[in-house]
Amino acid sequence: MTYCVGVKFNRGLAFMSDTRTNAGVDSISVFKKMYTWEVPGERAFVLLAAGNLATTQAVVSLLDERAKSVADRSPTLLKTPSMYQTARLVGDTVKEVIATSASGGQNADAFSASFILGGQVKGGEPRLFLIYPEGNFIESSEDTPFFQIGETKYGKPILIRAYDPDMSFSQATKLLAISFDSTIRSNLSVGMPLDMTFYERDSLSLGYRARLEQDDPYYKEVSERWSEALRDTFNVLPDYPL
Amino acid sequence: MTYCVGVKFNRGLAFMSDTRTNAGVDSISVFKKMYTWEVPGERAFVLLAAGNLATTQAVVSLLDERAKSVADRSPTLLKTPSMYQTARLVGDTVKEVIATSASGGQNADAFSASFILGGQVKGGEPRLFLIYPEGNFIESSEDTPFFQIGETKYGKPILIRAYDPDMSFSQATKLLAISFDSTIRSNLSVGMPLDMTFYERDSLSLGYRARLEQDDPYYKEVSERWSEALRDTFNVLPDYPL
Repeated sequence: MTYCVGVKFNRGLAFMSDTRTNAGVDSISVFKKMYTWEVPGERAFVLLAAGNLATTQAVVSLLDERAKSVADRSPTLLKTPSMYQTARLVGDTVKEVIATSASGGQNADAFSASFILGGQVKGGEPRLFLIYPEGNFIESSEDTPFFQIGETKYGKPILIRAYDPDMSFSQATKLLAISFDSTIRSNLSVGMPLDMTFYERDSLSLGYRARLEQDDPYYKEVSERWSEALRDTFNVLPDYPL
Repeated sequence: MTYCVGVKFNRGLAFMSDTRTNAGVDSISVFKKMYTWEVPGERAFVLLAAGNLATTQAVVSLLDERAKSVADRSPTLLKTPSMYQTARLVGDTVKEVIATSASGGQNADAFSASFILGGQVKGGEPRLFLIYPEGNFIESSEDTPFFQIGETKYGKPILIRAYDPDMSFSQATKLLAISFDSTIRSNLSVGMPLDMTFYERDSLSLGYRARLEQDDPYYKEVSERWSEALRDTFNVLPDYPL
């Protein structure tokens, strides 16, 4: 499967995605699920993808190709007037790819994929969207400041409990690392390495970007100390009075 | 949906189940999902149920009826020679109910249900089984000492991290309370009150039993302090070095 998270903070947007794809447990590969586009000073986008790998790659290839062929009359990611129009463009591309794949009468569910899109276009706010296989989408809000796709359940409790809109990107990375660690320990279909990136509000260019490998010292420390701390906390809480 | 857990410890078995059933979010009811049978000094069983409520109630009603009509030639829960045969009996009953429900050509998936069965029959060990809708089943082991059914993902990370076979029942309740709290905070389809019971090894009778209500002071304390402790722990861990 996959696990990807996009979170909106006051400082901007943070994104993390795993890299495991599998067709059965005996066919496991490493694929990037994070894609970026930018026109520095004007726009920057991050796209995270979950679902059928052929679909997500086709969506990204189409977006890429159309962004490059300026003569093409199709709309392009590098010309959209707003984040809303960018989300519409991605949504339409998703719908187009899935419809084409399923046009032979096959079940569209098999080709399904969902996306998290975040970024900013000059003149607008940083925005974060969850794009459905049907091509429609929803936007994050103060009440729902993050979106998850793929294996979302294991890593949700910590996001709910520890999210704070004033977090720094360093703290955001810690939050995401713990959410991913809980997922990876529970589910084989999500795996290291992890890709991460930040978009800083009003920077209008892609920010810090890194890949956390299996033996990344920060990730290992957080993972180990978090487990220890959970066990310690568990021991400190009162036992049930029988 | 539902969330039920059965865990095997050296001291015996611990069980917890929520009580929310829903047919859409506008049709929510409270139903017990924990059922017990015993012949003190000879056998004691606990059954937890998840899935189609009509199916799980039919399974329990059939098991109950057959246990009471001693003249009936059908096998009965109160006469099975071992835990293995008890699991087979429950599995066969599940398969029978689902097959009957779906006999009109309807999709059997709609009537699906799964069960956790634990207990002990005199002369044998305490055993814990996960019974599938197909009627077959698996048994817990040292490596997999617990089974979950229903909304299993949110509450799994803490079980993996904090389980210890030497836990007391008081500690087991704490473990289960935290696992349920993580689930209830993340998913509307799992709700209070919670039913819990323990089976003490070789007691051959049902043990302590309680219902944790929304305002149960122990549950509230664990829930609040666990959240606080997670946030505190989160703050103590090092931020990502940017």
